[in-house]
Amino acid sequence: MNRFLMSNLTWKEYQEKIKMGILIIPIGSIEQHGPHLPLGVDSEIAENFALIIAEKVGGVVAPTLTYGYKSQPNSGGGPIFPGTIDLNGSTLIDLCKDILTEFLADGWQRILIMNAHYENEAFLAEAVDLLLRNQTTPFPKVVLANWWDNISASTMTKLYDEVEFRSWALEHAALAETSLMMYFCPELVGSEPIDEDFIPPTYQTFPVPKTAVPASGCLYTAKSSSAEKGRLIVEDVVRNFEVILGKEFA
Amino acid sequence: MNRFLMSNLTWKEYQEKIKMGILIIPIGSIEQHGPHLPLGVDSEIAENFALIIAEKVGGVVAPTLTYGYKSQPNSGGGPIFPGTIDLNGSTLIDLCKDILTEFLADGWQRILIMNAHYENEAFLAEAVDLLLRNQTTPFPKVVLANWWDNISASTMTKLYDEVEFRSWALEHAALAETSLMMYFCPELVGSEPIDEDFIPPTYQTFPVPKTAVPASGCLYTAKSSSAEKGRLIVEDVVRNFEVILGKEFA
Amino acid sequence: MNRFLMSNLTWKEYQEKIKMGILIIPIGSIEQHGPHLPLGVDSEIAENFALIIAEKVGGVVAPTLTYGYKSQPNSGGGPIFPGTIDLNGSTLIDLCKDILTEFLADGWQRILIMNAHYENEAFLAEAVDLLLRNQTTPFPKVVLANWWDNISASTMTKLYDEVEFRSWALEHAALAETSLMMYFCPELVGSEPIDEDFIPPTYQTFPVPKTAVPASGCLYTAKSSSAEKGRLIVEDVVRNFEVILGKEFA
Amino acid sequence: MNRFLMSNLTWKEYQEKIKMGILIIPIGSIEQHGPHLPLGVDSEIAENFALIIAEKVGGVVAPTLTYGYKSQPNSGGGPIFPGTIDLNGSTLIDLCKDILTEFLADGWQRILIMNAHYENEAFLAEAVDLLLRNQTTPFPKVVLANWWDNISASTMTKLYDEVEFRSWALEHAALAETSLMMYFCPELVGSEPIDEDFIPPTYQTFPVPKTAVPASGCLYTAKSSSAEKGRLIVEDVVRNFEVILGKEFA
Amino acid sequence: MNRFLMSNLTWKEYQEKIKMGILIIPIGSIEQHGPHLPLGVDSEIAENFALIIAEKVGGVVAPTLTYGYKSQPNSGGGPIFPGTIDLNGSTLIDLCKDILTEFLADGWQRILIMNAHYENEAFLAEAVDLLLRNQTTPFPKVVLANWWDNISASTMTKLYDEVEFRSWALEHAALAETSLMMYFCPELVGSEPIDEDFIPPTYQTFPVPKTAVPASGCLYTAKSSSAEKGRLIVEDVVRNFEVILGKEFA
Amino acid sequence: MNRFLMSNLTWKEYQEKIKMGILIIPIGSIEQHGPHLPLGVDSEIAENFALIIAEKVGGVVAPTLTYGYKSQPNSGGGPIFPGTIDLNGSTLIDLCKDILTEFLADGWQRILIMNAHYENEAFLAEAVDLLLRNQTTPFPKVVLANWWDNISASTMTKLYDEVEFRSWALEHAALAETSLMMYFCPELVGSEPIDEDFIPPTYQTFPVPKTAVPASGCLYTAKSSSAEKGRLIVEDVVRNFEVILGKEFA
Repeated sequence: MNRFLMSNLTWKEYQEKIKMGILIIPIGSIEQHGPHLPLGVDSEIAENFALIIAEKVGGVVAPTLTYGYKSQPNSGGGPIFPGTIDLNGSTLIDLCKDILTEFLADGWQRILIMNAHYENEAFLAEAVDLLLRNQTTPFPKVVLANWWDNISASTMTKLYDEVEFRSWALEHAALAETSLMMYFCPELVGSEPIDEDFIPPTYQTFPVPKTAVPASGCLYTAKSSSAEKGRLIVEDVVRNFEVILGKEFA
Repeated sequence: MNRFLMSNLTWKEYQEKIKMGILIIPIGSIEQHGPHLPLGVDSEIAENFALIIAEKVGGVVAPTLTYGYKSQPNSGGGPIFPGTIDLNGSTLIDLCKDILTEFLADGWQRILIMNAHYENEAFLAEAVDLLLRNQTTPFPKVVLANWWDNISASTMTKLYDEVEFRSWALEHAALAETSLMMYFCPELVGSEPIDEDFIPPTYQTFPVPKTAVPASGCLYTAKSSSAEKGRLIVEDVVRNFEVILGKEFA
Repeated sequence: MNRFLMSNLTWKEYQEKIKMGILIIPIGSIEQHGPHLPLGVDSEIAENFALIIAEKVGGVVAPTLTYGYKSQPNSGGGPIFPGTIDLNGSTLIDLCKDILTEFLADGWQRILIMNAHYENEAFLAEAVDLLLRNQTTPFPKVVLANWWDNISASTMTKLYDEVEFRSWALEHAALAETSLMMYFCPELVGSEPIDEDFIPPTYQTFPVPKTAVPASGCLYTAKSSSAEKGRLIVEDVVRNFEVILGKEFA
Repeated sequence: MNRFLMSNLTWKEYQEKIKMGILIIPIGSIEQHGPHLPLGVDSEIAENFALIIAEKVGGVVAPTLTYGYKSQPNSGGGPIFPGTIDLNGSTLIDLCKDILTEFLADGWQRILIMNAHYENEAFLAEAVDLLLRNQTTPFPKVVLANWWDNISASTMTKLYDEVEFRSWALEHAALAETSLMMYFCPELVGSEPIDEDFIPPTYQTFPVPKTAVPASGCLYTAKSSSAEKGRLIVEDVVRNFEVILGKEFA
Repeated sequence: MNRFLMSNLTWKEYQEKIKMGILIIPIGSIEQHGPHLPLGVDSEIAENFALIIAEKVGGVVAPTLTYGYKSQPNSGGGPIFPGTIDLNGSTLIDLCKDILTEFLADGWQRILIMNAHYENEAFLAEAVDLLLRNQTTPFPKVVLANWWDNISASTMTKLYDEVEFRSWALEHAALAETSLMMYFCPELVGSEPIDEDFIPPTYQTFPVPKTAVPASGCLYTAKSSSAEKGRLIVEDVVRNFEVILGKEFA
Repeated sequence: MNRFLMSNLTWKEYQEKIKMGILIIPIGSIEQHGPHLPLGVDSEIAENFALIIAEKVGGVVAPTLTYGYKSQPNSGGGPIFPGTIDLNGSTLIDLCKDILTEFLADGWQRILIMNAHYENEAFLAEAVDLLLRNQTTPFPKVVLANWWDNISASTMTKLYDEVEFRSWALEHAALAETSLMMYFCPELVGSEPIDEDFIPPTYQTFPVPKTAVPASGCLYTAKSSSAEKGRLIVEDVVRNFEVILGKEFA
């Protein structure tokens, strides 16, 4: 029983943590992640990061938002693959806005949204903006962050020792996510390393053609993934978040 | 690693289960449940029922909707207690509609929505109605059910052997939910049995006064709760759902 | 010309009544009510109750909301019968919110929403909550009530002297509504007493099958209905509302 | 008991009238109409016209929409006067769209929306357009009409024999409406004829200043109003509607 | 390079003009205007009026809203003609509301909305009302005006010297608009003067029949149009606006 | 008078171009672009690219959407600077959806959305997805593209000969946009080259602090910008679009 999960606390236990604590809201997706990773990868990663950071900084982890915005062809599988269950943009905005409204009403002053699904970001930012754009005080404050934007350059070098890093859009179900899953929940990772080398177009087309993404659902190689690389990412990202939260939530 | 959870499946494993299978969508809430139960009771119960039923009928369990509609004073704690994080009605309608739209697009013909939060029901029904009201074929078919409406009369007699059953609205964090939590996750249940005896008014008032609910957050007694009674409920409800799904999804 | 109806007052006459008075907003539906009752039953009952209470407590009756939320199969006829003209949930929420916003802007401090259609309740509560959830003063105050929840136990015994009371969901077009219509507008009541004995399922299915409700549109018996029983209900309910309003609007 | 009112019919009686009949939906407002007329003038007029036309053409009159769009300063009292209870534009659109959707689902092929509140028109047209813009068959057909646009020139001459006709915007609570109320419900008409002579600006300003409308709430004179002139309007307008419906609904 | 166009200013240049200046927001449409005028007539006219007035009163002209509300058959071509690209009502309301919100946040106290498309008006008024209805101070103030409502009677006499003025609804692509285009951008005006004489019905029908408007897209005659008459309108309207803004924005 | 602008065409001229032609919808923003560039940069660039491409491929250019989604601190000035007039996400989605719906109804089979404002992209993609996600035929087809994603690597080398290219997010009002403006409309470009070197954080914070962006409104250097580099970009991008449209719209 994880004591950092809000859902495991009674209302009295939860209430005690609000005043000086940090609330972390993990958000992922349910989306195809190739033949070697489960549909819940993004939510799994978001929640795991949130729990480790909560332990470090004395935070509370809200229930993970397990459904996210629409997976796009150039950074995932889009609507082509079964098991990708996407929310409309306005729904994600409303969902995030409602939840934040309630947490702010409970008195939280420091909130971290831990995002693990590339396509969520614009809609999450919109939700927070709609709530806080007219606020003139620095607190309550919301930090919205993706884990991948917070890997140090030195760690990137270690991760991409055998394969070249191209872009985070291409990293869908590739080295970084596979390594993280090997570290967090190895029993959910299939044995075959995927090895795609897809060059997505420099624009989007609608309706999305069936051939927009390779048949595996992956865009790039997962070769050289390892639990050890997962550990490297986690330790680096968590350390960086400690610095960020220390600075922003002082 | 539970193989009935959609989030643990790859898209290929998931795809194989669609054609003849049953999709179960659990929905709960994050809501105060007195000093002896955690905030995640409803989601915990919904997901546990869903997993057991999925195992019985060969189903797949979608990620649980862990945020629900607004807890009401006369059947919970309403907005009075911290830790009750509620969605607006239109948000829950949109969320449920988006998810169902996607599952239907994936080809599911048999969907069970397993609800464990009293106040969700009207908004879930609205969402499904908006999607299916013009459909002229019997399938795809959605069954929307609350676990408590599907306890047999004979089981009710066994459960309420020491205390009188009043109404499901009053059973918030009381005997039935406490017993289910003792059975599903005893480590999350506090030791003191709550013993309120609140008579809610025959109407609602707004704004909700601070005294609308006893200070504990409970409305009625949890005395005589036991893991054994939890087991009785689960076995009875699961059996009844097997009958219902057999009839409706034939 | 009824002087308690807002629509019959000039703006000056209306203005004089705001400061200390009670505004009553009746809401019903236009919905099938079996072969013996007209489509407007719920609105008729809501408005009649409102007018009598207004006379007792010095209130003003706003124009009745004559279209309501979707009739459900397990408590009415759902979308199966012609003449059931239902609003979407979001429309009813907006409608109620707009009207209340305007009445509050006019200065009303005491508002009673008199509901006579079972399925409206969740959406009316949502509308009022959206308006008043952040209000920190006790007034303006809104009371939301269904007439049937405010019949005394002793009156229930007198009403159900020949037939057993089952549940309010089953009472659609049954003894209570038929008796009220016999009392309020006997010329609109058909002569044949309906005698269904339908056991609705313990769950909902979508799309709604044509056989979800008996062909008459009724769920239970209307036998032993009488204008005298209608009078009993009215006198009891009005007395109870006088007490409620006296307590809540003091 | 008026047999042309839908709310007075059972679902079976109503069903029989759908196939070849005309459904008339009256829509008014609840809006200040000066010191001599009640707040419900527009709804009263809309419903009375609808009932007379229904009798002539064999129609059914739906429950009147008694709340309308926002009264504007240059054609009524705007938000300045108490008793003017206005809907937002999007609410009126949704309300009208929901109701029409249901009536169309019931099978109506010929629908007349009888409007008696100037400011409703744009939003009613939007609602109908949203429903029918992609329909490629001529039926079902909706006619949207204001009563004042359908007074013959010869009748106008008779009505404005003593005072000059300026514009329909200025006719708020003036000669035409006062005469109609004298004809339809004389008991609701105050004795003093109002005699304003207001020249509204050629533009709108926001926020609406308190001086945007004369203190009486009227814009122009009601002098020379009479029940006889009301009768002239009614007979002329009804005759014209018979021609219109004969032509459009053939 | 026009220095009154906001889009041509840097943020520093723009900032300097806010405090005492007038912001003018032109709004038109993209809509068929017969065989002799281009689709952009309304936007062209709105922007040209705005620029001349801005020069006179020291204003700034915001980017023109070039898409407007739905052209209606009785005052334009409705959905019948290609090239008429219409916004839904709720979209125009939101668009106008968002933009005004931002301009108000920038500190503007005096805003003129210069409308040149008949059908926009109700939705523009709704947008401004939603923003300012609860404001209790006279400033910030928004003036919403159509150019045609601000032509002096004496100018009207000069314009309609050869043809009779019927109504502004019929003036779609007729004498006034054609003359204005001959004055503002003669190179966009076709040589043949259109000469329709259409009597629109006294009501609306949906779906809009293909014959609702003459095949040319015009409703009335453009004969006797001239650049000179365009100049007369412009000088008169601009003079009137100077008076209006002087009075309202003092 | 540009004959590729839809607003300059009559409805008949426009109609002739639909069948085999390409419709180009430019979209920009009104947003601070530092002290040397005007607020309309993005719209200016979008429209200029659209017109050149239209000339090459025989297209029609729709009226430019001159208001865009919210400028973000890490890729522009966010809400900190005056003159940045942003739309809410849902408004931009609706606006784009309405316009596309109408163009599709006019019969367009090939539509290019030419985006010149970084932050618009997610909301434009959502709008198109909502319209076309259920379409099973390849046409009508919409291509959504940003100009900067379509600069060839070899051109990038020539552009960034003196300064290093960092990221497109940092290129707000920097070398590429400044060069394009020097080429398209030199009279709108101020003489001082801005030289910021801002490192944005790896996350977002809300509310946006006043110090989130340098006081100039620029994030990076505009040094070495030139009209000649603008010409290089234009020729390269236009050539690439010819290839893309040739391939996608064949």
